[in-house]
Amino acid sequence: MNRYQTVALAVGERIEQGLYRVGDRLPSIRQLCREFRVSVSTVQEAYRRLEERGVVEARPRSGYFVAARIAASALPSVSRPAQRPLDVSQWDQVLELVGESPSHDRLLRLGRGIPDLEAATLKPLLRRLSTLHRRAAAQDLNYDGLAGSLELRRQIARLATTSGCLLHPDDLLITTGCQEALSLSLRTLAGPGDVVAVDSPSFYGTMQILKAQGLKALEIPTDPQTGISLEALELALEQWPVKAIQVTPTCNNPLGYTMPEARKRALVALAQRFDVAIVEDDIYGDLAFATPRPRTIKSFDDDDRVLLCSAFSKTLVPGLRVGWIAPGRYRDQVLHMKYVSTGASATLPQLAVAEFVAHGHYERHLRQVVRQYQRQRDIMLGWVMRDFPPGTRVSDPQGGFLLWLELPDAIDCVRLNARLSEESLHIAPGSLFSASGKYRNCLRLNYAAPLTGKIEAAVKRIGETVASQLGEHAELLG
Amino acid sequence: MNRYQTVALAVGERIEQGLYRVGDRLPSIRQLCREFRVSVSTVQEAYRRLEERGVVEARPRSGYFVAARIAASALPSVSRPAQRPLDVSQWDQVLELVGESPSHDRLLRLGRGIPDLEAATLKPLLRRLSTLHRRAAAQDLNYDGLAGSLELRRQIARLATTSGCLLHPDDLLITTGCQEALSLSLRTLAGPGDVVAVDSPSFYGTMQILKAQGLKALEIPTDPQTGISLEALELALEQWPVKAIQVTPTCNNPLGYTMPEARKRALVALAQRFDVAIVEDDIYGDLAFATPRPRTIKSFDDDDRVLLCSAFSKTLVPGLRVGWIAPGRYRDQVLHMKYVSTGASATLPQLAVAEFVAHGHYERHLRQVVRQYQRQRDIMLGWVMRDFPPGTRVSDPQGGFLLWLELPDAIDCVRLNARLSEESLHIAPGSLFSASGKYRNCLRLNYAAPLTGKIEAAVKRIGETVASQLGEHAELLG
Ligand SMILES: Cc1ncc(COP(=O)(O)O)c(C=O)c1O
Ligand SMILES: Cc1ncc(COP(=O)(O)O)c(C=O)c1O
Repeated sequence: MNRYQTVALAVGERIEQGLYRVGDRLPSIRQLCREFRVSVSTVQEAYRRLEERGVVEARPRSGYFVAARIAASALPSVSRPAQRPLDVSQWDQVLELVGESPSHDRLLRLGRGIPDLEAATLKPLLRRLSTLHRRAAAQDLNYDGLAGSLELRRQIARLATTSGCLLHPDDLLITTGCQEALSLSLRTLAGPGDVVAVDSPSFYGTMQILKAQGLKALEIPTDPQTGISLEALELALEQWPVKAIQVTPTCNNPLGYTMPEARKRALVALAQRFDVAIVEDDIYGDLAFATPRPRTIKSFDDDDRVLLCSAFSKTLVPGLRVGWIAPGRYRDQVLHMKYVSTGASATLPQLAVAEFVAHGHYERHLRQVVRQYQRQRDIMLGWVMRDFPPGTRVSDPQGGFLLWLELPDAIDCVRLNARLSEESLHIAPGSLFSASGKYRNCLRLNYAAPLTGKIEAAVKRIGETVASQLGEHAELLG
Repeated sequence: MNRYQTVALAVGERIEQGLYRVGDRLPSIRQLCREFRVSVSTVQEAYRRLEERGVVEARPRSGYFVAARIAASALPSVSRPAQRPLDVSQWDQVLELVGESPSHDRLLRLGRGIPDLEAATLKPLLRRLSTLHRRAAAQDLNYDGLAGSLELRRQIARLATTSGCLLHPDDLLITTGCQEALSLSLRTLAGPGDVVAVDSPSFYGTMQILKAQGLKALEIPTDPQTGISLEALELALEQWPVKAIQVTPTCNNPLGYTMPEARKRALVALAQRFDVAIVEDDIYGDLAFATPRPRTIKSFDDDDRVLLCSAFSKTLVPGLRVGWIAPGRYRDQVLHMKYVSTGASATLPQLAVAEFVAHGHYERHLRQVVRQYQRQRDIMLGWVMRDFPPGTRVSDPQGGFLLWLELPDAIDCVRLNARLSEESLHIAPGSLFSASGKYRNCLRLNYAAPLTGKIEAAVKRIGETVASQLGEHAELLG
């Protein structure tokens, strides 16, 4: 790291930790020179970088201040979904997003949920995969036990303590990605016609499970900083025969918030009062910017009603398809569902991940990418605020690598995509994240991969295209 | 191969090809000496081996004759299941069979559906897996396209021509084993309370899908040589609102029969007349002893109503979890089900299999193991006829590596297992293969792995245990 990067990082971290708040004056250039024993030009460069990222702002003749990065007013609005059970649609759009392999893709898809696969700290995982496959005999490619590798379940149980969970390896089942974990959960808890309450917007993969299983989505208003509205949820539970509550409370996809602990605890209490199960999707939880990482809802679950679903798809790589579930009191049914769904999972990928975790590589990798994602969040935020038309609202992710934009009402992001595809660009339109095609004026962007000039130019083009669609709309009206 | 093995194999093959039929006199020792240019003792040894396997029998002073290996009367009876829609049970017993990884198992499980993993012809697959993983970058562990690797789908389409099927790679979707293919099919075709007609006995994995999905199994009488009774099926279709017909018509698990072509064709016609879909499980089809392998039902499917399900789990190894489906007219729905069930499948195992097939290793491996399984079928048959009490009926597998035994009525194979577990032995009890616990007096044995003295001794012990349970039963009655 250069000297100026060291300084910029240190100042950035102090802001992140709340030592300086929005509008606070930051140390002068002279102070930082003394503290870090560096030259004036180094500190100037550091501040310039922070300014570029939108973290600080220079005020002429007064010095540097913490920028009002995302003033509360610029956050996406609290969502107002339909609040009655709805059939899910939008499959065509989801297929357009996830149907093709990214390596065969002619579009630059800025909307997909893919982590940075170039991270050097992934190397030990590749080495382990290589060694295991080199040494493998065909016997190692026999059927595995249904619950999955004990070694891996041990490691996952150990990691879970970080999120406040005391799990025994037997409390865990390995799945084919988080998608299978969610699918098994919802199929265990509810059948055709049943109602599932979800935060909203909500991951399209879960919404499509509801659709495939004939379930109805009851979308609950959700705050972009604190998550699902407990008040609205309580009303909904009184009014509808809800079979399960499905939430992604930590580093939410797509909104990026982490529910405060008190609200997580209150959600468990509410579920207990109405005797409903909770399906908790924690796939981005280990990518929280805070340390230690936030607690899971599962960690407050004193009567085993939470089914905790996760995977290494966002923290490591998606293509090993290694996920897991801690199904609580539903273990037997979920194990049955797992058997009929795919049988036992592949063994060697599980062993590779288990060894990677056991040797401390997972935690090292997390430290590295979490810092990277946090830095890139700020850069991407800066670009969006610079390049998108006024009236654009943007999320303030507390972890993960996804940004949610709420554009002026006149914008339809499916139409936007059609326009963008002419320039080989693609975003994830907001309507995928709703049962009923709400959030048409919203979109999701990914800031995981190193933010090259190409991506900066792409963000700029998207901003310009939005602006031009707004212009056309105004003309139509005028 | 030794000289006597060459001779034994040649004579065995002529019998298999029908050049000599049961009861026919075989060439004299002198004739074979001339033909193969070997000594008398070599031919004697060859005949001794064939006799041991129960293929030929010596008649004093008359020579060698084709043995009435399995006289028709010793075949299992035509099944007589309940013929009304039933809820499936038996999960506990299935879990006992498949719950544990074979490598951690304290029992010698002679009932599991595992191929010979020691076959030398699998080596190129292991090499390819090793090379692919050594060369892999993390990008190769990104999400794959939903339909799966095009390379692999091309190879599967090419192989399908052997079974009379003209498929385009786009007609195929890669799945997580055959289990996922079956699960996607049945979930696409039917919902809770719906009726699915099945051959009977039927693979327990499929039966458990019905259970998990809340479907009812309508078990149709099935002939141990020609498969599902079309007459009974027709009556059932007239009487019940059947949503799908699920069959395993080639190298059936557990009965080993292959439906004659004419009956396969007639089954399609029947499905057309009643406008019902057919789910065809072909997982053992490439292991048929006949060459070319028998045609699939799918190959007669002129209006795209057959969903062909298969995998490399029995022909290569189970632990890669590479399966596929040709879903016909249901492609869009099955693709949706695939997405919500597990998302895209892992890429590298698909590529390894694709390369293995493309280089001709698959066909080479098949030739090798099919001959081995055919030989071992005869040996295992011989052991069973020698070591089991009179009244035991046994299937005559036309492919694959599974033998089905029908024991005298007094035997309950779940109780038998309890007794066998004291000697660290385990068989697959017949009741797993029925919705309602029929076939309690039946069991399944595996003859895939090289038939060592240990396995011979195990078969003997099982036979003795059956005999002793029969004795106890007779005493109780007496
Ligand atoms: C919130 C959330 N849950 C689950 C998944 C599915 O994860 P996996 O790829 O492990 O099946 C994703 C991936 O996009 C996700 O964003
Ligand atoms: C007839 C049949 N179908 C399907 C399967 C499941 O195959 P896979 O292991 O590929 O999921 C089996 C395996 O036991 C089987 O015997």
